Amino acid sequence: MKIKVSDLIVKFFEEKGIKHAFGIIGSANAHIFDSIFHNSSIELICNHHEQACTMAVQTYWKITGIPTFALVTAGGGSSNAITGVLSAWADSIPCIVLSGQENARYITPDHGLRMYGTQGYDSIFAVSKMTKYGARIMEPERILYELEKAWHYATTGRPGPCWLDFPMGVQSAVVDDELLPHYYPEKDIPAISREKLEGAPLVEAVKITLQHLRAGHRPLLWLGVGIRMADAAEEIARLVDILGVPALLTWSAIDLLPSAHPLVMGSAGVYGQRAANFILQSCDCLVTIGTRLTIPQVGYDISELARSAREITVVDIDPAEIKKYPQRITQPLCADAGDFIRELLLQASSEPLSSQQEWASWCTQVRERFPWIGPEHDDKEGFIISYRFMDKLAPLMKSDQVVVTDMGTALLSGHQALPIKPPQRLLTSQGLGEMGFGLPGAIGASVARGRGEVVCLNCDGGMMMNLQELQTVVHYQLPIKIIIFNNDGYLMIKHTQKAVLEGRYAGTDKKSGVSCPDYSKIAQAFDLPAFQIRTWEDFDCEMPKILTAQGPVICEVFMHPEQFFHPKLGVSIQPDGTLISPPLEDLSPFLPRETIAENLAIPLHEKSQKITL
Amino acid sequence: MKIKVSDLIVKFFEEKGIKHAFGIIGSANAHIFDSIFHNSSIELICNHHEQACTMAVQTYWKITGIPTFALVTAGGGSSNAITGVLSAWADSIPCIVLSGQENARYITPDHGLRMYGTQGYDSIFAVSKMTKYGARIMEPERILYELEKAWHYATTGRPGPCWLDFPMGVQSAVVDDELLPHYYPEKDIPAISREKLEGAPLVEAVKITLQHLRAGHRPLLWLGVGIRMADAAEEIARLVDILGVPALLTWSAIDLLPSAHPLVMGSAGVYGQRAANFILQSCDCLVTIGTRLTIPQVGYDISELARSAREITVVDIDPAEIKKYPQRITQPLCADAGDFIRELLLQASSEPLSSQQEWASWCTQVRERFPWIGPEHDDKEGFIISYRFMDKLAPLMKSDQVVVTDMGTALLSGHQALPIKPPQRLLTSQGLGEMGFGLPGAIGASVARGRGEVVCLNCDGGMMMNLQELQTVVHYQLPIKIIIFNNDGYLMIKHTQKAVLEGRYAGTDKKSGVSCPDYSKIAQAFDLPAFQIRTWEDFDCEMPKILTAQGPVICEVFMHPEQFFHPKLGVSIQPDGTLISPPLEDLSPFLPRETIAENLAIPLHEKSQKITL
Repeated sequence: MKIKVSDLIVKFFEEKGIKHAFGIIGSANAHIFDSIFHNSSIELICNHHEQACTMAVQTYWKITGIPTFALVTAGGGSSNAITGVLSAWADSIPCIVLSGQENARYITPDHGLRMYGTQGYDSIFAVSKMTKYGARIMEPERILYELEKAWHYATTGRPGPCWLDFPMGVQSAVVDDELLPHYYPEKDIPAISREKLEGAPLVEAVKITLQHLRAGHRPLLWLGVGIRMADAAEEIARLVDILGVPALLTWSAIDLLPSAHPLVMGSAGVYGQRAANFILQSCDCLVTIGTRLTIPQVGYDISELARSAREITVVDIDPAEIKKYPQRITQPLCADAGDFIRELLLQASSEPLSSQQEWASWCTQVRERFPWIGPEHDDKEGFIISYRFMDKLAPLMKSDQVVVTDMGTALLSGHQALPIKPPQRLLTSQGLGEMGFGLPGAIGASVARGRGEVVCLNCDGGMMMNLQELQTVVHYQLPIKIIIFNNDGYLMIKHTQKAVLEGRYAGTDKKSGVSCPDYSKIAQAFDLPAFQIRTWEDFDCEMPKILTAQGPVICEVFMHPEQFFHPKLGVSIQPDGTLISPPLEDLSPFLPRETIAENLAIPLHEKSQKITL
Repeated sequence: MKIKVSDLIVKFFEEKGIKHAFGIIGSANAHIFDSIFHNSSIELICNHHEQACTMAVQTYWKITGIPTFALVTAGGGSSNAITGVLSAWADSIPCIVLSGQENARYITPDHGLRMYGTQGYDSIFAVSKMTKYGARIMEPERILYELEKAWHYATTGRPGPCWLDFPMGVQSAVVDDELLPHYYPEKDIPAISREKLEGAPLVEAVKITLQHLRAGHRPLLWLGVGIRMADAAEEIARLVDILGVPALLTWSAIDLLPSAHPLVMGSAGVYGQRAANFILQSCDCLVTIGTRLTIPQVGYDISELARSAREITVVDIDPAEIKKYPQRITQPLCADAGDFIRELLLQASSEPLSSQQEWASWCTQVRERFPWIGPEHDDKEGFIISYRFMDKLAPLMKSDQVVVTDMGTALLSGHQALPIKPPQRLLTSQGLGEMGFGLPGAIGASVARGRGEVVCLNCDGGMMMNLQELQTVVHYQLPIKIIIFNNDGYLMIKHTQKAVLEGRYAGTDKKSGVSCPDYSKIAQAFDLPAFQIRTWEDFDCEMPKILTAQGPVICEVFMHPEQFFHPKLGVSIQPDGTLISPPLEDLSPFLPRETIAENLAIPLHEKSQKITL
């Protein structure tokens, strides 16, 4: 059947079950826009900056499990989209960018010109190290092949973004869809394959892992977002129960299991919870599944990670990730988290693990001894502290609440102190951690929920990076509760300046060059209800109204401009001026040495011994 | 002397005469920020999105002639900067991006990981096709070499952006500045060399050009921004007077000579002025200097450009540009515009050109017959038309007024209808033409003028792309008069949809998915005075107040949501349904055939003959 290429593109995505996409029109993508708006069932949400499109597709996928696309135009439209693509790349989000491009005759790459017409540049090349696959489609007949190939790469193995670039003439060309070549995955595609450990090797690897878990006195699971990506969220819940092994959740997988689950011990890391770090460092057998073990998780010295563990098994779909720490990982397994978990479930079910009850009880005791909110989070000089804010927010949340955070205060205190119970979700950008993700992330999540409610925890600095998206919220009347933590600028950077630059602020607060607007006035400008919270009385009065409001609202919460982020893996300056970088279990503010010792199942690290408080 | 690398970086730029730079702080660039704020005379303007930094550096350079730098952080901070870099690349703007980066040990490129820590990616690679030079500095000792090399590449030959990436540890390292290796330009550097036509060949080439100009009965100069870049603005004014040859100005060079100069005939092109296009098409000898002859200048069929010209001489510093149209360019000369003009001045002065007075008079008559504002620009349905707005704005402008436009309505009517008299300036982004350039462009220009006044002609759609920069305007109290043309969405794209998609709107106005806020309310939110103009009475009342206000203001001008952009090279649909793409002289709305014929010094093109009105 004869069909216009732009119609075929849209039909392809319709058949994948996509209901929504995100984009901004331009001359160079007008044909695809036209096909979506006037010849499809897909609703295209129009953002006001292309970065927002490539951020929204990420949370859209996290909520629906359906990858979708961002539709951007040539030139600046394409380059504006890059930050979100890089973010999706780091966080393994399957999605596709469709970009318009100048007419084909102006974009031959071999003329040596900076730009032939206007707005033409090699967008595919620019993102080639942050996409799994990218292609500029110069012949209309290649359309189906390229769509199928991009979809395949985006969604198989370790997922990630792909990018297809369409010169104007290609979009409007007419092809016969029955005559078009298709894409058939190569046997050994460069993308990471699911098959790596299938069949016998998987069975064997799981058997060894199970032996390690059985042999360990203090076994521990560390569960990552790869599990959800492998569609094994239900299985992991069953597996943890069957094994009876304590588990940590990475920040990306913080909403995989209930925070209050008897075997879930929180999240460990540089900004870990105290109990989680004690438990991580005390285990003698660690199995990580579907996490890439980033620096914020493992700290700055890999040799100190779970240092008494004889076995560290790392299960990840990306062969490069499992080889990252050869000095510490004893069993690197390249496998799909789902395959691994299902096989482990099978083997463990047939012969359940003799539970290490004593260890689990010890972990529970440690957890109870160190609640997420401690005395270090007491209000300071009359200001609300963001950690206590989370503590008070939690009981007000709906049972299916979706929370999206921006960076800085929202990220740290949200992930350190907000308890989650699935189907509640806590979403953000982890790998790139780009300021500004919060608002478009909330938009993507709201659209994914059928214009449903989302709580967006944002910061005064981060709001600015996608301020224009308030109009998208208003236009589509997305019931997003935007909570802005105002701490006069970039609080995390202030702490960097305190730590390494003797507290000399520069471009971090109003006095040193960066101010933010009055967000209540901003709310009024966008016809949004405005709230302000300065005290706990305000909180008690306003927060229920905010969370039960029908439409979008903005609430600014005024916090201490110097609030600390605690606990944190810091550096200890000794009386003689020397610096000690303690191991992961020894978080700041430093606890008495005997408290550390009492909450470790292993001896106090010699560096910890040397620290004088 | 022992010096911290970040201090040395800042000292380097201080010695280049840089007084201002633009940036946003992050952990990864905190050392350089510290050196600027606490150990230098450079003022760093803090924007609220990195794209604004790389746009502001462009207008900063255009006003001061001093290249400056944008200082961004790792990850999203770097990728956010890309659009401005691409724009600087297209428009040949010398500037340098300094970016922070993860610590060196996390960014070895050969580990095959998507990202090792957080926020690390290969920024240099991503921009490698849109920068003249880029390097990640892994060894502190290379700092001076790389700074000198980047500066050299950015500022020599055809200028352009360069990018240096600094891992955190490198910034804080201490080096001995006397022991550091320097950069010495290679004899044949890959950048385009000024030397190409120096010496004898230049003399010879100019001689031939002068012969062509003398031999022609209807000689014409087409002057581009390369002339200003080569610091030859004064010389070109003298040259035009001495030669007595009519001249066209490109949009990038629209402020090179007064619009009212007796020999300046306006700007030709797809959105050219009628008289300029008649004259371009009538000339028999064309000499272009310092312009890359883009599609919007030359139209869609190069064979029709100045079609009766026997000689077309193209003088450009980029060897790729002069080879672009081999079928039409008879004398491609790779030379610096300044060298060429100075030599031409020398030769022409010693033996002045016998002026073709008749041709100049003819051109003047054509120009007088077709003022920039014609009956096609009459107000429509009670709405102000942007072209008449320009006409009324011009006499109110200060003698040194700087105007920066965004895209769309502001770009087109600004460049088609606003008369300029140097030292007045009219600035925008020409090559990339990215929406959102207007506001950060105005910021860069205002800072360049010592927080001086700038008129920013913007549009409702374009304002959104850098809305956050209003806070930068407010924080630094930059007296920018922001005039926003409201035409309910993306007007240029509406016209595309009318032209090729039967008028089906999609994502172009409020009804089809894109709305903009009430900018008077936005102004209030940022504590800026707000004005609204709906009628000429409003204009007469408000505009003088706006232009004499002390600080920044926002004025929204409500225009017809379907306003046409005229004149324009369009397509003619014949009674039998066939399409005719007329030559450049035959602009829409179409004039009677005899009017075209009367204003051409050559016969009517056969396509023009065929057009039935």
